[in-house]
Amino acid sequence: MRTLGYYNGKIDEIDRMMIPMNDRVCYFGDGVYDAQPCRNRNLFALEEHIDRFYHSAEAVEIEIPMGREELKALLKDLVAKVDSPDLFVYYQVTRGTAVREHVFPEVKSNLWVTLKPMKFGDGTKPIQLITLEDTRFFHCNIKTLNLLPSVMAAERAKRAGCEEAVLYRPGGRVTECAHSNVSIIRDGALVTAPTDNLILPGIARAHLIRQCHALGITVREEPYDLNDLENAEEIIVTSSTKLVRRADRLNGKPAGGHQGELWESLRKAVIDEFLRETDA
Amino acid sequence: MRTLGYYNGKIDEIDRMMIPMNDRVCYFGDGVYDAQPCRNRNLFALEEHIDRFYHSAEAVEIEIPMGREELKALLKDLVAKVDSPDLFVYYQVTRGTAVREHVFPEVKSNLWVTLKPMKFGDGTKPIQLITLEDTRFFHCNIKTLNLLPSVMAAERAKRAGCEEAVLYRPGGRVTECAHSNVSIIRDGALVTAPTDNLILPGIARAHLIRQCHALGITVREEPYDLNDLENAEEIIVTSSTKLVRRADRLNGKPAGGHQGELWESLRKAVIDEFLRETDA
Repeated sequence: MRTLGYYNGKIDEIDRMMIPMNDRVCYFGDGVYDAQPCRNRNLFALEEHIDRFYHSAEAVEIEIPMGREELKALLKDLVAKVDSPDLFVYYQVTRGTAVREHVFPEVKSNLWVTLKPMKFGDGTKPIQLITLEDTRFFHCNIKTLNLLPSVMAAERAKRAGCEEAVLYRPGGRVTECAHSNVSIIRDGALVTAPTDNLILPGIARAHLIRQCHALGITVREEPYDLNDLENAEEIIVTSSTKLVRRADRLNGKPAGGHQGELWESLRKAVIDEFLRETDA
Repeated sequence: MRTLGYYNGKIDEIDRMMIPMNDRVCYFGDGVYDAQPCRNRNLFALEEHIDRFYHSAEAVEIEIPMGREELKALLKDLVAKVDSPDLFVYYQVTRGTAVREHVFPEVKSNLWVTLKPMKFGDGTKPIQLITLEDTRFFHCNIKTLNLLPSVMAAERAKRAGCEEAVLYRPGGRVTECAHSNVSIIRDGALVTAPTDNLILPGIARAHLIRQCHALGITVREEPYDLNDLENAEEIIVTSSTKLVRRADRLNGKPAGGHQGELWESLRKAVIDEFLRETDA
């Protein structure tokens, strides 16, 4: 198979898969997801992603219809069924299938998986960013399927010729990007927003922090604002699928680029870990 | 047919309808909707709902795949196909079907309609409310499919034995309910939150305001807070499907009930308009 879609045990190419109109995702976006890279058929950071997936589900009181071990085994089985060994692995759970009504129905949840081929970068190509006001809800720590503000922000970034949009709350506090975390280097230290309800606790972000510790780079998990972003020595964008990248332009102006050696050591450490863990 | 589901021209009972896994509603809740009552096969306040539906779609840059006249004709056609003349009529548009990626795909949008039988109340039975912090996004004026916080609030209301949850922003400003608007009577006037980005411009709310004008009741569209709510002479909850109701309990304590005559004249005016407009 070129791609794979899974829904409660049914499998086909994603673009041939159909799901019930009454799945609550259709009316409410009532579900949570997680997503991760898979290289050489090795699911990277699987434990961390599975942990986050169960935490997200718990936060919105959805019971995933199988246990962690069963889900991990399922993902490995599915990965073996597709042609490409290098994949974007995505899974979600929705609250179930029932007549539309806001309150929870008494039905079993639905489990979804999609796999599609993916190429991985090494983070050497810098990206461009715009900044946009963060108008999202106050549950950004949960990986829900309520992503319309992120969709709008990503589209605005694209129209501006940028890869990502950096979001800030009123007052200027930088939170994260439309679908990545963002950290900065300031005075040689990594400054990254704390994992409160305004940002997703990114797994690539956690790896970046671990690599900072390994390299002796100070890490400050504390709020920072647009002014800090504009004056950052480096701006570092992390996500589970793109791993780690740095920005060289912000709102059309040059940005970062003042800690090339530190950046390069961090980039290499994050990418090397990924390659080492997913070698055939 | 007992119920009807429509998706891009395909029709069946809702619980037999299937939609593509790659409809962007499945990954992002990327769409908007509207919903309204239909009595004696008469779609109530159709122009107002259609207007709002097109406004919601425009706000998120989704082009509804047919014009207003064509959509109204379609809804009337579909209403004629179901057994019950009294219906909950729901329609939504999603951005289209494409491989999951945040940015907009270059595809046509998908149009959905569901019809199901509905019984209408006359608003005489009072309801119970709880209050909850409003943790939603800042696009509540758009009727999007990103409704997970409303789902959670509705479920919490149900568990507390209540029909609705009144939401308030930090600082105590009352916005609206999980799936209704809420207004109060204070000093004999209707006080209702202004239609900014924190509330949906409810159509039943607009009808309530018009009936106030007709009855000579002063209307103040201005922010009010939890203290005003607790001390309100009446608490009035409006929605397109439940029309108008008053609350007699708030967080388990007696509430409202101090303007019985005014409430009764308002209730009767709203319900009478509905009945008159939808008589066979």
